Amino acid sequence: MVGAGQLAQMTCQAAIGLGIGFRVLAASAADSAAQVCADVQVGDYTSRDDLLAFASGCDVVTFDHEHVPGQHLAALAEAVPVRPGAAALRYTQDKLAMRERLAGLGVPCPRYAPVADLAGVTAFAAQAGWPVVLKAISGGYDGRGVWVCGTPDEAAEVLAHPVAVIAEEHIDFDRELAVLAARSPHGQAAVYPVVQTVQRDGICHEVLAPAPLLRERRAYEAQRLVLGLAAELDVTGLLAVELFETRRGLLVNELAMRPHNSGHWTIEGAVTSQFEQHLRAVLDLPLGTPAAVVPQVVMANVFGGPDPDVYSRYLHVMAADPGLKIHLYGKQVRPGRKIGHVTVLGYPGLIDQLRERAGRAARYLATGED
Amino acid sequence: MVGAGQLAQMTCQAAIGLGIGFRVLAASAADSAAQVCADVQVGDYTSRDDLLAFASGCDVVTFDHEHVPGQHLAALAEAVPVRPGAAALRYTQDKLAMRERLAGLGVPCPRYAPVADLAGVTAFAAQAGWPVVLKAISGGYDGRGVWVCGTPDEAAEVLAHPVAVIAEEHIDFDRELAVLAARSPHGQAAVYPVVQTVQRDGICHEVLAPAPLLRERRAYEAQRLVLGLAAELDVTGLLAVELFETRRGLLVNELAMRPHNSGHWTIEGAVTSQFEQHLRAVLDLPLGTPAAVVPQVVMANVFGGPDPDVYSRYLHVMAADPGLKIHLYGKQVRPGRKIGHVTVLGYPGLIDQLRERAGRAARYLATGED
Repeated sequence: MVGAGQLAQMTCQAAIGLGIGFRVLAASAADSAAQVCADVQVGDYTSRDDLLAFASGCDVVTFDHEHVPGQHLAALAEAVPVRPGAAALRYTQDKLAMRERLAGLGVPCPRYAPVADLAGVTAFAAQAGWPVVLKAISGGYDGRGVWVCGTPDEAAEVLAHPVAVIAEEHIDFDRELAVLAARSPHGQAAVYPVVQTVQRDGICHEVLAPAPLLRERRAYEAQRLVLGLAAELDVTGLLAVELFETRRGLLVNELAMRPHNSGHWTIEGAVTSQFEQHLRAVLDLPLGTPAAVVPQVVMANVFGGPDPDVYSRYLHVMAADPGLKIHLYGKQVRPGRKIGHVTVLGYPGLIDQLRERAGRAARYLATGED
Repeated sequence: MVGAGQLAQMTCQAAIGLGIGFRVLAASAADSAAQVCADVQVGDYTSRDDLLAFASGCDVVTFDHEHVPGQHLAALAEAVPVRPGAAALRYTQDKLAMRERLAGLGVPCPRYAPVADLAGVTAFAAQAGWPVVLKAISGGYDGRGVWVCGTPDEAAEVLAHPVAVIAEEHIDFDRELAVLAARSPHGQAAVYPVVQTVQRDGICHEVLAPAPLLRERRAYEAQRLVLGLAAELDVTGLLAVELFETRRGLLVNELAMRPHNSGHWTIEGAVTSQFEQHLRAVLDLPLGTPAAVVPQVVMANVFGGPDPDVYSRYLHVMAADPGLKIHLYGKQVRPGRKIGHVTVLGYPGLIDQLRERAGRAARYLATGED
């Protein structure tokens, strides 16, 4: 796996369970996965040589992020199966290509337009209205590279950065949903229950699995959309799709082709975790059951706060709520940095308590405030 | 953790989840845990120097087996906290000391006697009847070091080995149960649901969690017995107690103070796995909830068969039953060797199907026979 963040770290645990040899390409020995993995190579994922040296001896190469340059993916693919492949990964690396492809498939999306300058933005806003969402065409994640602009002045400020952007309609959604599916090279696919994600400032804070009170027909529609996309885009491995639920139906917001924050609940909450499923898919092993094992799961992300000593607070949280599953990624604590997550299992009727338990633990770990 | 077999391997996964640094002392780089752990030292657990070198830099030392010599445990304990401590571990290393201590505590056990020769065995059998069970006082596990002798001739054959033994009454039990508890240095304790173990030739083949149709009062009695023992013996970490359920009540068969085969079901089946719980206990972290997450779990061990190529059969099992959790330990396959286990989650009403699914997968992995 190229990349050694928390996604690779959790994939490492799954690889141990499956009895699969697992190597990571880490930027540094301090990376989350590099701390725990038995087979670590330190190197630069933007270096063709480092990538090829890393891949030597691997049966399959996969990724914990989407930032490997396309031309290197092509070079890698000559040496070893690369899953997902460059043609699929492109739609996670280039938001304009993604929007154009989805539009071509007739998949409902927010209105969008490539924009080169402020005139382009204001022309787009004349149709779609203000605010306008500007998104970096490549390189953004977790709210980075996304700007909600309420006025032409704000848009001009974004356009002053040397970053290619597209404009997207600002969606007044009811809530955000996410769907995770896995697809293997010979075409087997499995889709997880639809979850609700709760975002703040474009960053996922909470996942409710399954999405509360989601109509069965809507859930089916979302799952079918994602299974269809996985096949159309020839995804191998996981495909995570972030959706807006709106009065005019579901709209696709973002795609990722790797384990995804919206799927962390599957570690304890599903028969097959997303990390195990990704490995099974990219290795072309038969996929596992994606069903939930309990009727309701809540996951809350833990972010770094002003005080870096998260580990002394860890003890208090363990003592206060012995039913929580706390995952810390071994990252250096910086304010706002995603350093772990908390999962709690229960029943839909208890969802308010589950959210309170997970949220309180995440908050206390970050800030020491109850 | 001293020892790098499958117990250490699964503890390694739990350590990653908890964000805890984890080092193993392996006999060889091919050991199950040595293959997957980021911090491996190869050495000899019977060497005082190797043990001390290994422990240097560790906050706590614990074990995946009970074979470290007592005098080395004492030397280790001068350098670093050793959990469980030598005084507790002694009762897993010396079956005579264990029986005497349990008798002193009034814990119900099979009748037993130290025996030095055939005259001792026949004198014991005159009271307890034939067959007599001879057990090596130290070094036995998984049916090794246990001989069921139907006649004085069979006993004489065992006594011809240069092994110190005790005689135990052969128990005509209804079934075998096991209880797992964790206890931390400051005395917090947590006990798992009582399970039924199904043994063949003294080796555990199957675990049913919880034990089907166990009366609540009996379950409570078993759990209270084990929590009491953990406190009396000053166990830190896990205590696993194997019990006979008989017409005259519960009798203690064996003790272990480490993660135990009867607790593998907790990886998917309990809020806190036994491996995570052992780490929390020996590190004096608050313990996690030991409750089951689903109403019935079945675990079946996978043993090596005549054909070592278990990995090609692995694919078929994954394809045939995508709801199974298959764990392979990365061991070289030898006939009869425990090389993995299979867990399946469900409901008590489905127990026959759950046993069939887990058992069939384990059998097929071993033999290729359906």
